[in-house]
Amino acid sequence: MTLYRLSATDMAAKIASGEVSSEALIRACLARIDEREAGVHAWAAIDREGAISAGREADKARLLSAGKLGPLHGVPFAVKDIISTAELPTEYNSAIYRGHRPGSDAPVVMTLRAAGAVVLGKTETVEFAAHGRNPVTRNPHDFARTPGGSSAGSAAAVADLMVPLALGTQTGGSVIRPGAYCGCIGFKPTYGTVSTEGVKLFSSTLDTVGWYARTVADIRLVAGILEIADDQFPQAPAPSSLRIGVCRTPYWDRALPATRGAIEEAARRFAKAGAKVEDAELDPAFADYNELKEIVMRAEGRFAFLNLQRAYPEKLSPGIRKRMDRIPNRKLREALDKAASLRPVFDRFAGGYDAILTPSTTGEAPIGLESTGDPIFNGMWTLLHAPCLTLPGLTGPEGLPVGVQLVGPRYADGALLAVAETTASLLQA
Amino acid sequence: MTLYRLSATDMAAKIASGEVSSEALIRACLARIDEREAGVHAWAAIDREGAISAGREADKARLLSAGKLGPLHGVPFAVKDIISTAELPTEYNSAIYRGHRPGSDAPVVMTLRAAGAVVLGKTETVEFAAHGRNPVTRNPHDFARTPGGSSAGSAAAVADLMVPLALGTQTGGSVIRPGAYCGCIGFKPTYGTVSTEGVKLFSSTLDTVGWYARTVADIRLVAGILEIADDQFPQAPAPSSLRIGVCRTPYWDRALPATRGAIEEAARRFAKAGAKVEDAELDPAFADYNELKEIVMRAEGRFAFLNLQRAYPEKLSPGIRKRMDRIPNRKLREALDKAASLRPVFDRFAGGYDAILTPSTTGEAPIGLESTGDPIFNGMWTLLHAPCLTLPGLTGPEGLPVGVQLVGPRYADGALLAVAETTASLLQA
Repeated sequence: MTLYRLSATDMAAKIASGEVSSEALIRACLARIDEREAGVHAWAAIDREGAISAGREADKARLLSAGKLGPLHGVPFAVKDIISTAELPTEYNSAIYRGHRPGSDAPVVMTLRAAGAVVLGKTETVEFAAHGRNPVTRNPHDFARTPGGSSAGSAAAVADLMVPLALGTQTGGSVIRPGAYCGCIGFKPTYGTVSTEGVKLFSSTLDTVGWYARTVADIRLVAGILEIADDQFPQAPAPSSLRIGVCRTPYWDRALPATRGAIEEAARRFAKAGAKVEDAELDPAFADYNELKEIVMRAEGRFAFLNLQRAYPEKLSPGIRKRMDRIPNRKLREALDKAASLRPVFDRFAGGYDAILTPSTTGEAPIGLESTGDPIFNGMWTLLHAPCLTLPGLTGPEGLPVGVQLVGPRYADGALLAVAETTASLLQA
Repeated sequence: MTLYRLSATDMAAKIASGEVSSEALIRACLARIDEREAGVHAWAAIDREGAISAGREADKARLLSAGKLGPLHGVPFAVKDIISTAELPTEYNSAIYRGHRPGSDAPVVMTLRAAGAVVLGKTETVEFAAHGRNPVTRNPHDFARTPGGSSAGSAAAVADLMVPLALGTQTGGSVIRPGAYCGCIGFKPTYGTVSTEGVKLFSSTLDTVGWYARTVADIRLVAGILEIADDQFPQAPAPSSLRIGVCRTPYWDRALPATRGAIEEAARRFAKAGAKVEDAELDPAFADYNELKEIVMRAEGRFAFLNLQRAYPEKLSPGIRKRMDRIPNRKLREALDKAASLRPVFDRFAGGYDAILTPSTTGEAPIGLESTGDPIFNGMWTLLHAPCLTLPGLTGPEGLPVGVQLVGPRYADGALLAVAETTASLLQA
């Protein structure tokens, strides 16, 4: 097996046992990048020398460590370029921040590095992860198609075997959508459980750090390091013990045949494995939930981008400026309050199932890089602060990946990841 | 009149008219600092050369501007040292971040600079504004006493006439308490209306940027620049039109005679000026509101400081580490939901008055620097996301300032500041 295909968990085990060096694994990832990057364009910056040197240090440290290594000792990861890093530039895909060096790691990066992980580079993003300039990244399955956004480079790099782990962020659908389009696992934990310090602010109510991997075990490993859940390591349940609620959401009419087929296929496979699969219809109170998300995102986005609008109006993309239209604070307050009042309602609803099964996207990745795709199936879970994850395995009529999404109640991240462990394998052909 | 005594509004007017140069005003503030700083210790860093040079630039720009100047053109301000600045270090009063330079201004600093303001320096803070090491700052009225915290240096610098404006932050009571102890105006706007990017994270639900000044007009000027309110410039109402609700809160038994006297005296003066002043008792549902704040602050604080706990455990103060005890996520969720459900209840309650009058602190600034004082009269308004402001003018039995606090419903910042404009003068002897 080629080294770059290994999961983070397997890399960590092989480094810890001395079977493979961290340096060799990092070099394997760099070689994979060399092979593929000219087509994919996942990376805003690669820390070739720094990563190799950190790998060598990790290998030396292993010999001196007497077995006490961090759970990601020597394992490379990628960081979306709206998240601050100490050594590499952090440019937000913005002309304003060319060469910007924030001088320290964002807390989430620092925690992963404290667990032994090595920053391989920064990944391409939509400008400020907020409706600005799109990234140059292409879908690794078809370079004519978008990888989704805004965490485009992170999803593409993990899906394309360049790196086993990558950090992203979600305000609308910026983790789940690219994961689904590129065909890897994307996870957005419960809001607030991972520090957003050192991450470009867009909406204080919505912004959430998430991450990508190719196995659920890797997603769980990071969740454990970040201590997001009280119950993060329940056993993966038997399929036959599961009760899955299929939630088509108020926006099902926007699901294309690829997505309709994927949801039906996933439901069929889960049922075949013995799970109880039933329709789960949201209360009518959720009918305008995506509109609430839009109000919150736009109103809070105005607060977030006011400084750039004032200081660099000509360098801020029209896509961001045009979303700075003023929403009355009364409307924002009403949206925040309604959203907050529905969170416990959703928790009770979702708590009646082991997971909610729902679309990750409207369909396969669209052709062209002008749009990163429709986030309609993402925003409501973000505003609900609910943990959600997209699982790959299924494909659409054009042969591209179609993800399906699992959602759980707030702070049930551990239980949701256990269910994901069970269901992920059922989606593999 | 000595120049350093001028308000920001007056400084801006004199600079704009050419009556006084920005450089002269900045030099006057620096001279005041030279005179007083050895006793007060308000500053973590002073940008003497940078500020003088920025003042000179502002004076040159005025001549070329044909009258189009930012509303704070050439006016100096101070920045609490947990808020990032491009030119000066940002050290959080932490050994971990000695000499740390984040390479860009936090959005709130950038917006004020885009309005023409000049960063004079960084002000002392409690370590990470979060129960860590206390600042060396002393109360300018009595060096044996605390100035309050965590925005100690900002409040002390403004109260001591070193600078007309300063930024602070509040998670518990970190804006209001120091303002009250030092005898200046401190304002915490509605949560979420000012970007917290580039500000050290403590609690994503609570952290709010606020500011200090010596006149309500200056507080409003900054509120206008930051565009926090739809209605930010209503006229100051006539005292006789006001309906003031005196809210003793569930914690009145902790109010010392100084505070009891100040509330009674303020109520008396407002009534004498014609205002309708009546008791306003909160619903019993608010009885445990401060406990909810504690749960949210501690649980979210653990997420916020996880990285430093992992990467620099020995350099993190015990005061922060001991607050990282794990609170079950279920308890956090219940606290967040209860807090959210009570916000609209409080808005309706507060909306029945032009302002709620309530204590800023338990009493005068305590002796010693070991404690920054009791935040019991602050936390609940922070968790309610309500705008609040402390007004000086009254003194306690030991001759020190005692603030009184005005609170309004969320997003009614503009109306609250208009009421503050009216009431502030009634508190001056």
